[in-house]
Amino acid sequence: MSVEDKFKRLATDHAPGQETRQARSGGDCKIGDDLPGTPVDFSHGDVDAHEPTPGSREAYLDGVARGGSQAYTEYRGGAALRAQVAERLAAFTGAPVDGTDGLIVTPGTQGALFLALGALVAAGDRVAIVQPDYFANRKIVEFLEGRMIPVQLRYRETETGAGLDLAELEAAFRDGARVFLFSNPNNPCGLVYSADEIAQIAALADRYGATVVVDQLYSRLLYTGSTYTHLRASGLMSPDNVITIMGPSKTESLSGYRLGVAFGAPAVIARMEKLQAIVSLRAAGYSQAVLATWFAEPEGWMDARIAAHQAIRDDLVARFRRIQGCTLRVPEAGSYLFPQLPELTLSPLDFIRALREQAGVTVTPGTEFSPHEDRGIRLNFSQDHAAAVAAVERIAAMVDRYRA
Amino acid sequence: MSVEDKFKRLATDHAPGQETRQARSGGDCKIGDDLPGTPVDFSHGDVDAHEPTPGSREAYLDGVARGGSQAYTEYRGGAALRAQVAERLAAFTGAPVDGTDGLIVTPGTQGALFLALGALVAAGDRVAIVQPDYFANRKIVEFLEGRMIPVQLRYRETETGAGLDLAELEAAFRDGARVFLFSNPNNPCGLVYSADEIAQIAALADRYGATVVVDQLYSRLLYTGSTYTHLRASGLMSPDNVITIMGPSKTESLSGYRLGVAFGAPAVIARMEKLQAIVSLRAAGYSQAVLATWFAEPEGWMDARIAAHQAIRDDLVARFRRIQGCTLRVPEAGSYLFPQLPELTLSPLDFIRALREQAGVTVTPGTEFSPHEDRGIRLNFSQDHAAAVAAVERIAAMVDRYRA
Repeated sequence: MSVEDKFKRLATDHAPGQETRQARSGGDCKIGDDLPGTPVDFSHGDVDAHEPTPGSREAYLDGVARGGSQAYTEYRGGAALRAQVAERLAAFTGAPVDGTDGLIVTPGTQGALFLALGALVAAGDRVAIVQPDYFANRKIVEFLEGRMIPVQLRYRETETGAGLDLAELEAAFRDGARVFLFSNPNNPCGLVYSADEIAQIAALADRYGATVVVDQLYSRLLYTGSTYTHLRASGLMSPDNVITIMGPSKTESLSGYRLGVAFGAPAVIARMEKLQAIVSLRAAGYSQAVLATWFAEPEGWMDARIAAHQAIRDDLVARFRRIQGCTLRVPEAGSYLFPQLPELTLSPLDFIRALREQAGVTVTPGTEFSPHEDRGIRLNFSQDHAAAVAAVERIAAMVDRYRA
Repeated sequence: MSVEDKFKRLATDHAPGQETRQARSGGDCKIGDDLPGTPVDFSHGDVDAHEPTPGSREAYLDGVARGGSQAYTEYRGGAALRAQVAERLAAFTGAPVDGTDGLIVTPGTQGALFLALGALVAAGDRVAIVQPDYFANRKIVEFLEGRMIPVQLRYRETETGAGLDLAELEAAFRDGARVFLFSNPNNPCGLVYSADEIAQIAALADRYGATVVVDQLYSRLLYTGSTYTHLRASGLMSPDNVITIMGPSKTESLSGYRLGVAFGAPAVIARMEKLQAIVSLRAAGYSQAVLATWFAEPEGWMDARIAAHQAIRDDLVARFRRIQGCTLRVPEAGSYLFPQLPELTLSPLDFIRALREQAGVTVTPGTEFSPHEDRGIRLNFSQDHAAAVAAVERIAAMVDRYRA
């Protein structure tokens, strides 16, 4: 494949946060006046509305003060920090984490995803990817010139678990996929895989000797009634075939520091470090110091953060449910909502542009997550509560304007 | 190529900064007692001895205070910052820089190098790479499954310019290379390409329609008597075929923030942004704020920094010249010294390990930069002046101990 062809598949025009680079439409199909209200950018969380973990700024300044030793860590991150984080992640996930050889600090979970796939996939290799799932998963495989085998999440057809089509997953393994990548909770749906689904994924991966990369970015932000099963602690597959990815950019609002971690199989982590050496050397040295605050938040802080998000979720879900023809499953974790809109007179991308231009509401098209999700829109509801509710009122008004 | 084979070529065991991950030797061949003295790690600069730019910490805190808008910039970096940096880089390099479409902020210059090559090289593509040159250049091409065509720097055979073998460069283009990557000043030699060499590189690239990526990381740290020619301002090749890379990690000691920039051809920058979207999303948002201090240092600050480094250079060069059988060219820019040692009874890697274990001196093996440089060692002399001189005395003593 030529490098030109490769990049044609890597479009970012509709990726979250890139909307400012789009030209404005002519507004030819515009109906009615603009809808007033505080603009809300649902493409990512608002770290001004939900502030970074207390103490993070101070931890950062401690890092700057440490000077050279903090600026130049090993490529995989500072050794003392890795030991500390490993202990906390072991407690959180319920299985040992080797801070010396089994953990790497990366520039965000995006960095961890790229390094994990880069360490596991060469040109022509087959990789099983869930649809819908985080949009970069597919793009990373395409950049590596791997071959994606999609596995459907039949989330609309079930009321428990995430709805992974396990027969399709097995077929992907049978067809030669030796890597399976998925996010849990699922991005964009916010659904948590059931204990039974995780057990079956582990059993299948074990049977076919596949490596599973699980993106658990949102696994701390669990709502009332949800239970979470860590694949790495299932005991049903070899720890040498699991890489877990997490980071403090979302629930903890530490996005501005660009920090993530990957942990698990030492052989894979070693390759990830080799790759990090040529991709970005290391996560920013001073930023790494902020990880000392992770899983060490003040008493009650995480409970309050979860409660605030659960309240926003409940209000937004109720409002979407009043839109005739709109369907959605209630997210069990994380801060994404993924409603499917009724049929409209505008194409999905035109409607999303109209939402932004006429109603000051930015959302991410469902097609970023799966080619089969053209009626879906993803909202990161980690926003100011009142502004988010008002913005969803405007979405409802826009749907009514352009209803087919 | 299997992913296993690919990673066998990406060893980082001897890469600068990774020495702590090596097991200690048995010390079987040890001669004499350990040599006392302040340990010096010449594998990278000492940002405690040469402190970050004044105001950088404050600029960072301003970024943190700006909150969400600073945490979530476009993937290519904040728009206002890009405009500001573009103007300064245009003034520095002597040719226009388009801050909107022709510049990207990256996680360090390492990030810029990876993105530039990732945007230009697909599996099987041929890439001309200088020997010796920065070790990651070769590794990035290997990761991308490109084919490297080496071009020798005959720096020992000339006293002016860097000594690029232009006939070899033309042969590489004739053999199908459409990308040429080089660092200027050269890493590890610290030599600056002459105006004539740059003109000939531009003319050749133009004739064959090749894109040139030039890593100018150290182009601000020029010593007395050196003149620097910016390829992008040569007027001898299309601006659409040049990407220039710089960053504030070295001369300015801002390494802990992980910042770099690439600027030039908008079509390539656009691809680099698409790649950044899946590799690390963006340079850490808060860190980006520190770029506001770049090329805006207090009056006289850069002159003092250069003078301090020139004084260290002169003392170390004089000391190396007293080692019988040691050769080196005096670096004209940057903070690397690349002496070639006389023949020793230990293998080069064993000698380097002995240096570290017996003399507390860490250097990087020449073979990281070229397979033909097994007698070379690279030192980053951005260190405490007195400690660096004493460390080179210990290197001299160790050479005498193990002289063949």
